[in-house]
Amino acid sequence: MRWKFVANIIGILLIFLGLSMVVPLMVSFHYQDHAQKNFIQSIGITMIVGLILIIISKKKQGRDDYINKKEGMAAVALAWAVIGLFGALPFYLSPQFTNFTDAFFESVSGFTTTGSSVMINIESAGKSLLFWRCFIQWLGGMGIIVLSLAILPFLGVGGIQLYNAEVPSPIPDKLTPRLTDSAKILWVVYASLTIIEIIFLFGGGMTLFEAACHAFATLPTGGFSPKNASIAHYNNAYFDYVIVIFMLLAGINFSLHYQMLRGKTLAFWRDTECKFFLGLTFLFIILVTWNTYSSVYTSLNDAFRFASFQVVSIITTTGFATADYEKFPGLSQILLFICMFIGASAGSTGGGMKCARIIVCFKYCYRELFKIIHPHSISKIKFNNAVISDDILRSIMGFLVLYIALFILSSILLACMGIDMITAFGAVAACIGNIGPGFGTVGPTENFAHMPVMGKWLLAWCMLLGRLEIYTVIILFIPEFWKK
Amino acid sequence: MRWKFVANIIGILLIFLGLSMVVPLMVSFHYQDHAQKNFIQSIGITMIVGLILIIISKKKQGRDDYINKKEGMAAVALAWAVIGLFGALPFYLSPQFTNFTDAFFESVSGFTTTGSSVMINIESAGKSLLFWRCFIQWLGGMGIIVLSLAILPFLGVGGIQLYNAEVPSPIPDKLTPRLTDSAKILWVVYASLTIIEIIFLFGGGMTLFEAACHAFATLPTGGFSPKNASIAHYNNAYFDYVIVIFMLLAGINFSLHYQMLRGKTLAFWRDTECKFFLGLTFLFIILVTWNTYSSVYTSLNDAFRFASFQVVSIITTTGFATADYEKFPGLSQILLFICMFIGASAGSTGGGMKCARIIVCFKYCYRELFKIIHPHSISKIKFNNAVISDDILRSIMGFLVLYIALFILSSILLACMGIDMITAFGAVAACIGNIGPGFGTVGPTENFAHMPVMGKWLLAWCMLLGRLEIYTVIILFIPEFWKK
Repeated sequence: MRWKFVANIIGILLIFLGLSMVVPLMVSFHYQDHAQKNFIQSIGITMIVGLILIIISKKKQGRDDYINKKEGMAAVALAWAVIGLFGALPFYLSPQFTNFTDAFFESVSGFTTTGSSVMINIESAGKSLLFWRCFIQWLGGMGIIVLSLAILPFLGVGGIQLYNAEVPSPIPDKLTPRLTDSAKILWVVYASLTIIEIIFLFGGGMTLFEAACHAFATLPTGGFSPKNASIAHYNNAYFDYVIVIFMLLAGINFSLHYQMLRGKTLAFWRDTECKFFLGLTFLFIILVTWNTYSSVYTSLNDAFRFASFQVVSIITTTGFATADYEKFPGLSQILLFICMFIGASAGSTGGGMKCARIIVCFKYCYRELFKIIHPHSISKIKFNNAVISDDILRSIMGFLVLYIALFILSSILLACMGIDMITAFGAVAACIGNIGPGFGTVGPTENFAHMPVMGKWLLAWCMLLGRLEIYTVIILFIPEFWKK
Repeated sequence: MRWKFVANIIGILLIFLGLSMVVPLMVSFHYQDHAQKNFIQSIGITMIVGLILIIISKKKQGRDDYINKKEGMAAVALAWAVIGLFGALPFYLSPQFTNFTDAFFESVSGFTTTGSSVMINIESAGKSLLFWRCFIQWLGGMGIIVLSLAILPFLGVGGIQLYNAEVPSPIPDKLTPRLTDSAKILWVVYASLTIIEIIFLFGGGMTLFEAACHAFATLPTGGFSPKNASIAHYNNAYFDYVIVIFMLLAGINFSLHYQMLRGKTLAFWRDTECKFFLGLTFLFIILVTWNTYSSVYTSLNDAFRFASFQVVSIITTTGFATADYEKFPGLSQILLFICMFIGASAGSTGGGMKCARIIVCFKYCYRELFKIIHPHSISKIKFNNAVISDDILRSIMGFLVLYIALFILSSILLACMGIDMITAFGAVAACIGNIGPGFGTVGPTENFAHMPVMGKWLLAWCMLLGRLEIYTVIILFIPEFWKK
C-alpha cells in the first residue's frame, strides 16, 4: 500500500471540495445570511489540508507509477469519508448544529446522496447552508457516476463489471473506457438534466433558489429539501409529477441517457435492467394506488399522485416525501420497504442493491431449479444478451448476501443502543440503501435527530457502505487486505 | 412422470396414517371424551383411500422399476400435502373446528412441525384431539429425519448433500446409506429421546398425558401444547429448563446423536455446524438476558430463564412460549426475528434456513472478499474439513435467495389480504421457518384464527415450502419440470 498515492488523490479532491464551497459562499453573499465567515473558514481549512496532503505526497512519487487495485479501493473509501469530514465544516460552524457528530452525519448523508437528516427546523437555517446541503448531494452524485461506471468496474467490485468494457455488449457505441472522457460525457448529461429540471420547477412557480436546491437533490437521488415538509410543502401536483419524472431519469443508467442523446432512441427499451426497473416501478405504483385508494385517499387521482411519488422516491432511493407512508396500509408499507432494498439501476445515481443484481439473482435461482431437473445441463446466465462469467455471478451473489448480512448486523448494533425493532430495521435500510427516511421513528415526517451519538456514526458508516457498493468499504476490514 | 409410483407411495403412507390414528382413538377410549366416532370415521376414510390408491397403482407396476428423482420430488411434496389433508379429518369432525380450512391449517401445521395454531380455546377440546395435535408433530418429525438425511440428499436438493454419503467426511462411521436402515437407527434415537423427556416431565409433576403431549411436540421442534398458555401455564423453572435441553437436542443433527450413542463423545465438538448452532444460541441467550434484565425482569435468574427459553424455542423453530417476546425491548425482538430465519441444524427436526447453510454462506462471502484481494487465487470452501463442490455451493446460495424471495412474495400476498406489515412479515417468517408464533397479531400470546381464509391456505403452503426445503415444492411449479 503506497499511502502517498492515496494521500495525493485525497489532497486533490479536497482542493476541489474547497473550490466548490465558493458556490454557497456566493449564495451567502447574495442573501446576506451572515454565513460568509463560516464558508471562508471552511474553504481555508479544506484547501490548506488539501495542499499539505499534495505537498507531502508529491515528493517521491514517480511519474510512471499507476495506482493499483488495493490503493484504488483504499482511496475510494477514504476519499468519501474524508470529504464527508471536511464537507461537515460549514454545518459545524453554523448555529444550527451543536456538535460535530450531527454535522458529520448531515454531510455524509449529503455526499452519499442519502438524504437522512438530523435538522429539526430546516427552514430556520440560512439559505447558503441549505444550498450547501443540497449542493453536496449533487457533488456526491457526480462522484457516484464516475465511481459506478468507471472506477468500480476497474476495481472488479460487486459485479458492476456487468457494464464493464470487457463484457461483450450488443450496443456498439460503448462509453469510451478512459476515465476522464467518460466522466466528462456523463457529467454533461447529469448537468443538463439538472438544468432542465430547474427550468421546469422555476417555470411552475418555485423560486430559483428552491428550484435549484430541489434539482440538486433530485438528480443525485439525494432527497434533501430546503423545506421542513419536503415536497409536501407545496402540495402541488405539477411539482410532484415533474419531480417524479426526474427521479425516474436519475434512477436509470446514465450511459443510456447518453445513448439516447446520441440518437439511439431504443436504448432504454433494449436494456434489460431499464425495462425491469420501469416495469417494477409501474407495478408497485398500481398496487400502492389500489391499496391506498379509499383507505387513505378519496379520489383515484390523489391515490395515483401520492402513490407514484412515494414509490418512485423510495425505489430510486431519493427520499423526498409528499405523504406519510407510515399511515398507508400494510401492503403499501411492505412494498415501500422492499423498494428500499431493490433500489435503482446500476450506473445511475440511485442506491440499494440495484435492479441489475436482482435480475441476475432471479436468473441464478431459476438456473438452480433447472439444474435439479436437468442435472447435467450446462446453462449460462445472460444479461443484455451477453453471458455473465462465473466470477461476476459469484461476486453479485456475494454482494447480495453481504448487503443483507450487514443490514442485519447494523440493525442489531442499533438496537443495542435502545432503538426499537421497526426503527432499527427502517433506519439501517434507509441508510445502507442511501434513501433518506425510514420506518418507525425515522419515518418521512420525522428525522434522525433523536438517534444516539453512536447510532449516528453507525448510520453514517452504513451510508458509506451502501454508497461504495459494500465491498470497497468492507474489504478494508479484512486482515488479508493489509498483508504485503 | 409415472403417477402410479407416486400414488403407490401415498397410498402406503395413508395406510400408516390410518393406523397411527388408532393411538388417539385409544386415548379417546381411555378418557371417554366422546371423540371415538370421529377417529373411527377418520381411520375408515383414510384407510379406504389409501387402499384404493394402492390397488390402482399396483396393477401394472414392474418389480424392477425404481423411482426416479422427478417422481421422488413429486411424491415428497404431494405426500406431505395429502397427509395434511387426511390428518385434518379428526380436527374437522370435532366440534372445535367449524370449517375445513382451519382443520387443514392445524393439521399441516402439525405435520410440518410448525406449531402455528388456529385454536382459540385449546383446553376446551377433548384430550384425544389434543393428543392427536401433538402426535402428528411427532409423526412429522419422523418424516423430516428420513427426508433430510436420506431422501433429499438422494434428490440433490438444497445443498443438504453436505451430509451426503458422497461427500468425503472425517467421521468414518457414516450412517448406512440404505434408507430403511438409516431410518430405523435414527428413529430409535428419536423415540428414545422422546421417552426420556416424558420421564423427566412426568417426574417433575406433569400428568403423563401432558408430559407425553409436550415431549411429542418438543422432539420434532413442533411447539403445540395442550395448554392455552403453552409452557407459561406451569410457570415452573424445572419444566422450562428440561424443555430447553430437549429443544436443543432436537435442533442438533440426529446423526450426531447416533454417533454419541456409539461412543464418539467428541462428535458434537467435531461438527462445525453443531458448534456454530450451540455457540450462536448461547450468544443470543446472553444478549437477550442482558437486554431484558431490568427492562422486563427484576432478577437476573428470571431474565436468563425466560431469555434462554425464548431464544432456544425460536432458533430450534419449536415455538413453545413462556413469555410474550413482543413486550421485550427492540434488541431482543430483532434477535428472535433473526433466529426465525437461521433455524436449527441440517439433519435435525428444526426448520429455517439451517445453520450449515448460514456457515457456508459466510464462507462464500469471505471468499469473495479474498478474491478481490487475490483475483487469481483458487480457494475452495470447506465444511467439516471436506471441500464443498461448486454444485452444492450454488445450490445453497440459490436456496438462501429463494427462501428470502418467497418470504417477501408471501408477505406481499398476505398484506394484499389486509394484514399489517409486522404481522405479515411475522406470520410468513413463522410459517416458512416452521416455528409457530410470529410477530404482530400472531405473537406468542395470540394465534392464527383471525387470518383470512385465503391467508390460512397461503400460510399452510409456506409451511410446506419451508419444511420440504423450498426446492422440492417450488420445482413442481416450473413448467420445465413437466416436460417429457
